[in-house]
Amino acid sequence: MARPLLPLLLLAAGGLWAAERSGSSSSAMEELATEKEAEESHRQDSVSLLTFILLLTLTILTIWLFKHRRVRFLHETGLAMIYGLIVGVILRYGTPSTSGHDKPFSCSQEDRPFTTLLVNVSGKFFEYTLKGEISPGKIHNVEQNDMLRKVTFDPEVFFNILLPPIIFHAGYSLKKRHFFRNLGSILAYAFLGTAVSCFIIGNLMYGVVKLMKLVGQLSDKFYYTDCLLFGAIISATDPVTVLAIFNELHADVDLYALLFGESVLNDAVAIVLSSSIVAYQPTGENTHAFDAAAFFKSVGVFLGIFSGSFMMGAVTGVVTALVTKFTKLHCFPLLETALFFLMSWSTFLLAEACGFTGVVAVLFCGITQAHYTYNNLSVESRSRTKQLFEVLHFLAENFIFSYMGLALFTFQKHIFSPVFIIGAFIAIFLGRAAHIYPLSFLLNLGRRHKISWNFQHMMMFSGLRGAMAFALAIRDTATYSHQMMFSTTLLIVFFTVWIVGGGTTPMLSWLNIRVGVDPDQDPPPTNDSFQVLQGDGPDSERRNRTKQESAWLFRLWYSFDHNYLKPILTHSGPPLTTTLPSWCGLIARCLTSPQVYDNQEQLREEDSDFILNDGDLTVTYGDTTITANGSSGPHTATTSLDGRRTKSSSEEALERDLGAADHEVTSRGTRLVFPLEDNA
Amino acid sequence: MARPLLPLLLLAAGGLWAAERSGSSSSAMEELATEKEAEESHRQDSVSLLTFILLLTLTILTIWLFKHRRVRFLHETGLAMIYGLIVGVILRYGTPSTSGHDKPFSCSQEDRPFTTLLVNVSGKFFEYTLKGEISPGKIHNVEQNDMLRKVTFDPEVFFNILLPPIIFHAGYSLKKRHFFRNLGSILAYAFLGTAVSCFIIGNLMYGVVKLMKLVGQLSDKFYYTDCLLFGAIISATDPVTVLAIFNELHADVDLYALLFGESVLNDAVAIVLSSSIVAYQPTGENTHAFDAAAFFKSVGVFLGIFSGSFMMGAVTGVVTALVTKFTKLHCFPLLETALFFLMSWSTFLLAEACGFTGVVAVLFCGITQAHYTYNNLSVESRSRTKQLFEVLHFLAENFIFSYMGLALFTFQKHIFSPVFIIGAFIAIFLGRAAHIYPLSFLLNLGRRHKISWNFQHMMMFSGLRGAMAFALAIRDTATYSHQMMFSTTLLIVFFTVWIVGGGTTPMLSWLNIRVGVDPDQDPPPTNDSFQVLQGDGPDSERRNRTKQESAWLFRLWYSFDHNYLKPILTHSGPPLTTTLPSWCGLIARCLTSPQVYDNQEQLREEDSDFILNDGDLTVTYGDTTITANGSSGPHTATTSLDGRRTKSSSEEALERDLGAADHEVTSRGTRLVFPLEDNA
Repeated sequence: MARPLLPLLLLAAGGLWAAERSGSSSSAMEELATEKEAEESHRQDSVSLLTFILLLTLTILTIWLFKHRRVRFLHETGLAMIYGLIVGVILRYGTPSTSGHDKPFSCSQEDRPFTTLLVNVSGKFFEYTLKGEISPGKIHNVEQNDMLRKVTFDPEVFFNILLPPIIFHAGYSLKKRHFFRNLGSILAYAFLGTAVSCFIIGNLMYGVVKLMKLVGQLSDKFYYTDCLLFGAIISATDPVTVLAIFNELHADVDLYALLFGESVLNDAVAIVLSSSIVAYQPTGENTHAFDAAAFFKSVGVFLGIFSGSFMMGAVTGVVTALVTKFTKLHCFPLLETALFFLMSWSTFLLAEACGFTGVVAVLFCGITQAHYTYNNLSVESRSRTKQLFEVLHFLAENFIFSYMGLALFTFQKHIFSPVFIIGAFIAIFLGRAAHIYPLSFLLNLGRRHKISWNFQHMMMFSGLRGAMAFALAIRDTATYSHQMMFSTTLLIVFFTVWIVGGGTTPMLSWLNIRVGVDPDQDPPPTNDSFQVLQGDGPDSERRNRTKQESAWLFRLWYSFDHNYLKPILTHSGPPLTTTLPSWCGLIARCLTSPQVYDNQEQLREEDSDFILNDGDLTVTYGDTTITANGSSGPHTATTSLDGRRTKSSSEEALERDLGAADHEVTSRGTRLVFPLEDNA
Repeated sequence: MARPLLPLLLLAAGGLWAAERSGSSSSAMEELATEKEAEESHRQDSVSLLTFILLLTLTILTIWLFKHRRVRFLHETGLAMIYGLIVGVILRYGTPSTSGHDKPFSCSQEDRPFTTLLVNVSGKFFEYTLKGEISPGKIHNVEQNDMLRKVTFDPEVFFNILLPPIIFHAGYSLKKRHFFRNLGSILAYAFLGTAVSCFIIGNLMYGVVKLMKLVGQLSDKFYYTDCLLFGAIISATDPVTVLAIFNELHADVDLYALLFGESVLNDAVAIVLSSSIVAYQPTGENTHAFDAAAFFKSVGVFLGIFSGSFMMGAVTGVVTALVTKFTKLHCFPLLETALFFLMSWSTFLLAEACGFTGVVAVLFCGITQAHYTYNNLSVESRSRTKQLFEVLHFLAENFIFSYMGLALFTFQKHIFSPVFIIGAFIAIFLGRAAHIYPLSFLLNLGRRHKISWNFQHMMMFSGLRGAMAFALAIRDTATYSHQMMFSTTLLIVFFTVWIVGGGTTPMLSWLNIRVGVDPDQDPPPTNDSFQVLQGDGPDSERRNRTKQESAWLFRLWYSFDHNYLKPILTHSGPPLTTTLPSWCGLIARCLTSPQVYDNQEQLREEDSDFILNDGDLTVTYGDTTITANGSSGPHTATTSLDGRRTKSSSEEALERDLGAADHEVTSRGTRLVFPLEDNA
């Protein structure tokens, strides 16, 4: 079942050349025939990849049209799926079936299969490589249609080529402040929630499967572990549509942070969860029932893989931060960007090489890079890296979604079982409900700023399934149960992206969730600056809430991060000589970059500006002036008479830190810059 | 010999998952063993790709160190090769030989090989795909060492994945003015020169081969067509090192343009030439001697492929220009960049699908995109696309060069023949000489601004061989003659990149070629603005020369381009209603974008500024002011009293056009911007 080869990029393989390469050697007729065939195959490869590119081009143009006309009932990913569907139908019913072209040849071998095979064809030797196992029943309907086969990629492509840029971008573009502020809740939703949802869906589906067996709807085996695996696959929410709409409408930031944080982390959790479930192999006869030892082994595997991948990602991020800090690489933005790209990519490979999960490692690498390395980069590299990963993310995401549309018609082993599908829809609804409401209740016990009922309903509603569920489901479609799971997942993704995604805007207004709130998110580069600015009003009020909310764990981490990690890994923060105990003086002096001392005075000035702006924000833009006077919360700092703080507590350092980071992003990225005035 | 599969990106394929995918199905022991093996293979893939990434990372850090310390005797590509060599030695002699692991299995087949093979292994069916033919003598030493095999990529990777971004970037970043000004000479060098060089080298090498046969040094067949193919392979110059140094030192722009233009176009010529030579198959018995019919067929193939690829590239570029002009896509830079990227990539696939050469099509697509589409892009997309392709180009180039270093030790079929190697060195020297000096003599008869002896010597010296020669040579290494050609090419590339590349700076000063001349090239982002500004002095003098030099063909093309193509494809230029005859009124009004009318007045103002600055240039920067009063050349325009021109000839439109384009690049790119003052 292993498919060590990804015959994807062969698609780009030049058709012309294959035929011409052996021209000077002896030209036997059959060789020419093979060459012609290879040439034809190359041309088809080019055509099939061209199909995808034209599909994407079409999608981009329609997206533009939709954005231009401010259509919000259908998101670009939904659009990509529709185009994929159309092309899928054309390929399925419009191209001739070319069966018998690649007539399979059988010859028996004694023992296990080799990865390389040499075949003697009338005196010439040809090398073959193992592609994978084929279940005996399927031998005669393998590759019925050349074109359909060409557009069917190896599932590993999704995992190893398309997902990493998407996930890295998610980590890299994380809005740190909102994310960290709600860290506790996000972790709870992502870990506990996903586990709860997985087990509930798994058990409900096991009931459905039992029912199907009773009714006689099930024609092959379907184990309990398969049901759990389905639970894990389908628990990965991917509210890309919802978030895009939130972004456009500037909906509430806390809700955004909760949904975004949950979906990003829960992808990682779902990957590791599904691999732990697969690793769950009870001993002895009882191969698919519950086994405590195997269960704990799975939990161990889960924790091991998760923490290992986390470490791997964090370590590469830290190494990149150190390299960019201690070399003057920022004089050469191209080198810097290339290094950044390579280091981020190497995380993935490193994790895979060590047996961890590359995708999860890449997520944490992205977060670390954004938190530390980003500060060391030159201005040009900052925008370069952001833009590079933004483009990669955009292309990969739309590719996956259009492929999903295509797969509905071109995938040749679909098993649609109405009972299973209806059961799955009910199960994911219940699973989501059992995950959101009880957890929110528990979290609200601890949160100062409660998660309101409206927010809970919106989170319940936003449980879309997307790229990650698809990638997990397509990974193994060898058995009957997996094929049924794959077909069902595809339908669930379609339904949630189209129906739920399209219903986001009405749902938001129905639930009275404020829009136009968030100035930190990317405003679309249109001329609606007024909307953005109006949204800036409640900003300080929101910041104010933050301070009350910050949990002690969070504060502890932040003071550690601010006092030690930031100064070690970046050029910002206080010099280590002041934060480390005096006996570490030498190390502290080595690790602190000279710029920190130089910037020290200057920083204090800048920081105090930010703090002042924090409490008392005046935004002037065009002829619209909004002054927002928020209260200052429980400050512990001493404030000098002229309004500048000379000493600050760790809490404020944190706020300042976050504020500074955000402002940096705003002023150096591609966003609207608000002229901030210090009205002290 | 065809290798339809590129097992490259499989390297990223996740090792862990392969082992865990079949957990829930029946777990036979041999299956587990296969899975374990696949897992091991995946891990090795990750490790081998990681090796390359670390190699590149190391290269980047050393490049930085070199740039930081202004070391110029070794270029980054030379450095990449050295690191590649070191890793190659380690892999070759440091890793255990794991022979017998993939023990080949033979079974006879009656007729020609299938592309897919099904093998029955103790009741289970496995699918195999054709990888390629293996010459009978090599069966026992295929894949002796797993690690060596892992780091050996399919040659198609170079052609289809690594070369396109390099070539596209070359086209996209072309300095249009200098390129077009020397277009005639560049075309002569690239087409005539490369053909001359190819035939001279081919014939000389045929002599060497005859000699080797006499002496008994040749152990297998080596045909005349092989010699010609070697000539084509090795005629592709790639003075990346020289150009980088020129760039850094701001050497003479005309020389730069000649070298750059020649090398870019001659890559394209060499590709098409080598494919035509391979297509040269004389009929009848006499398979490797001269045959007039086959020769003319080859010439036809050459012209057909070249013009077809050219058209394909130009057409995609024009389509992109039209799409970006007539949609308001520039409001959404991300969509615009994605579209640009996809359209440029589709050129490659389209050309391959139609049987043309993708790489050549990509080059002309790049030039068209730079000339038309670039003007329609939003400011953000301009920098985005530039930066995106710059990074891709950088990574691909360094990857190829480090792979070259690696290949010297890891490629397993090297044949080093001292006579052949020495002969090849002499042949490329003579070939280059027979190409540069006579052509320069002929060109000087027609050029007003002669190509001086020093320039000719420098061009002679700069005939480095690089990535393209390597990619062409590695494409087919199946026969004895091709293996010998590959090994020789590798040595020539090493020699020219290290020795010739390192000798560029001394050579420049020895030949008294001015440096510090060019303000249009990318100055390295250091603080040496003074040098750049000093270099601006002779600028106007140079521009002046241009006008005298511009050939009639060039002017004709430019007036056509300026009056019709630019207004149709971009938002700039005069409105079509004024340039087209009156009976085309309707079409003209449809095609001209409304912005043109709006900008009309404004443009005239801006343009006249450029023209004034052209003749009378004042540059103020810091406390250094340089005023350069060049003479104005044979102007045909009427100049109004206040120094602003109200009517301009096509020649000036051209100048303005070029000037405007350059200024746009300067002010919107990442370069130093000179505050230009209108001192009229």
